[in-house]
Amino acid sequence: MFTQQELSQLINATIERIDYPDLAPKLFEPVQYMLSSGGKRVRPCLVLMAANLFSDDIQPALTPAVGLEIYHNFTLLHDDVMDKAPERHGKPTVHLKWNENSAILSGDAMQALAYTYIATVPTPVLRPVIEAFNKMNVEIGEGQQLDIDFETRQDVTADEYIQMIRLKTSVLLGCALRMGGLIGRQLAIDSRNGMEGKPEDIDLLYTFGENVGLAFQLQDDWLDCWGDPATFGKRIGGDILCNKKTYLLIRALQMADGKNLETLLQEINPKKAGMGEEEKIEFFKKVYAECGAESACRKAIEYYQATALDALNHLSIDRKRTKALSALAQSLTHRKK
Amino acid sequence: MFTQQELSQLINATIERIDYPDLAPKLFEPVQYMLSSGGKRVRPCLVLMAANLFSDDIQPALTPAVGLEIYHNFTLLHDDVMDKAPERHGKPTVHLKWNENSAILSGDAMQALAYTYIATVPTPVLRPVIEAFNKMNVEIGEGQQLDIDFETRQDVTADEYIQMIRLKTSVLLGCALRMGGLIGRQLAIDSRNGMEGKPEDIDLLYTFGENVGLAFQLQDDWLDCWGDPATFGKRIGGDILCNKKTYLLIRALQMADGKNLETLLQEINPKKAGMGEEEKIEFFKKVYAECGAESACRKAIEYYQATALDALNHLSIDRKRTKALSALAQSLTHRKK
Repeated sequence: MFTQQELSQLINATIERIDYPDLAPKLFEPVQYMLSSGGKRVRPCLVLMAANLFSDDIQPALTPAVGLEIYHNFTLLHDDVMDKAPERHGKPTVHLKWNENSAILSGDAMQALAYTYIATVPTPVLRPVIEAFNKMNVEIGEGQQLDIDFETRQDVTADEYIQMIRLKTSVLLGCALRMGGLIGRQLAIDSRNGMEGKPEDIDLLYTFGENVGLAFQLQDDWLDCWGDPATFGKRIGGDILCNKKTYLLIRALQMADGKNLETLLQEINPKKAGMGEEEKIEFFKKVYAECGAESACRKAIEYYQATALDALNHLSIDRKRTKALSALAQSLTHRKK
Repeated sequence: MFTQQELSQLINATIERIDYPDLAPKLFEPVQYMLSSGGKRVRPCLVLMAANLFSDDIQPALTPAVGLEIYHNFTLLHDDVMDKAPERHGKPTVHLKWNENSAILSGDAMQALAYTYIATVPTPVLRPVIEAFNKMNVEIGEGQQLDIDFETRQDVTADEYIQMIRLKTSVLLGCALRMGGLIGRQLAIDSRNGMEGKPEDIDLLYTFGENVGLAFQLQDDWLDCWGDPATFGKRIGGDILCNKKTYLLIRALQMADGKNLETLLQEINPKKAGMGEEEKIEFFKKVYAECGAESACRKAIEYYQATALDALNHLSIDRKRTKALSALAQSLTHRKK
């Protein structure tokens, strides 16, 4: 089986060899820029790792995996335009380095290119792969829309928040694993290697990815408060300072009472807020811990993590082959950065 | 066979019945707005007309046809953002009625929805349909990029211009006909109706659509000068006033000489231009006619029209069944508005 490092290298090599359409080269300059900016290549790795569960040959999954990475970068590119973000991976964003129209148009072209790469899957799995990808593609848009909707709502519930992060991030991880699983199983069937597992394995892989994604995103909320400043990469308390409706804040607004609740509500209202930055961060963290929001967040992370691993354990696949996925899940949801 | 009017009604009825994803309803409000704004539904009609060549049952082509209309409206939506256009079909554009972020995000969701609808084609033709659609999708982006590139170039050749309009508009008509043809032939094969024609018919249909598109676009350039103000819908001379690099201007810059060329160059240079609006329109039209650009444009229109009809005539399909397509081609390329 391939290690995660080997898979990343395979993916980066494939990205470097992308043969961009050449009738209007300027269209793909921002695309190359986005794709060369690095990132952890988590999603294409998941495609390949899922394929590798069923087949030692993962070559046919490589181009579709890169398609998913192109798609992911398309969402980042358009998100950056919408957020007016100045930087990504320490480099100026496309709409600043080029302009907003380039960012919109090249993003659209990335979606087209992603589908082109994904449609290279073996024909017997083309329909389920395209359908899974289409479903995820619509859901990602819905997640982004909910995120925008929530900015101006004060009554977002924890369930609604989970739904939003599920749509905005988890479905892409689920889709990566479903795609890889579908391709891998087909390769197993074609090569009669005896490792094709069962059809239910595909849904289990999706469930695994979806729950890893939820645990990952909640961990991100938690790390904003209690992460290690040396490794977190972002300023600790950044979410608190911009009144971001994280799982912690949503739960605290529901669980805190009395003076604590009153002060929380006051401080997230720009017209009434009075605390200094460090004071605000410390106060929010204190309330999150006291009212039970922090422990609710930790419990939720553990729940989604356990659900993910449970799905993995139900796969009809030799436990040795699932180790890499289970290790990746641990690293993503126990990470310090 | 179905008349174009019947097909339009079928398409509009299907569009009205679209079951939008409902997890974030705001995402699809601009989509419904775009799709209810009317338009001639030319592209989905082409899908259905091509399917109808091979099969009296066109039901399985209806959802994919609407997918192509959704796609077309996605390109219009993002084009309007990039052009900062205030109106479309007499109604405020999405980025003004909602905001720019909504227009970007809902446009992206339209691309996802388009693929969802298109992927409903019968499984035996899923691969060629998706591949044709992907190719077209990339090309549309390239055409838009070339259009932007040409704005700041003074040396665009007639061939480059043709390439740009081919990518920006014609490939979508070609793709509509290819999709419809692929679906229709499959239905003919499945139902053994004896009308399946030959595999080459699919490429011929594409060629037909591509050339109709070129003739249509050149006709649009010509109508800007010599259209009937009562029916053209836009101001006559609008392209001239904004120095748009139409086929006529590009050819005139190549064919005019002496004082005429000098004055053309002066008047398309905002720093040197001196003519009043009506004077400018009359002068440009006079030069276009005198230098041969107008007749070159008419000849090109006739050439692409003839190429289109020639492709249609080579189809291995009963001539009676191709009448509707040939009439549509005539109406699109001999139109007065």
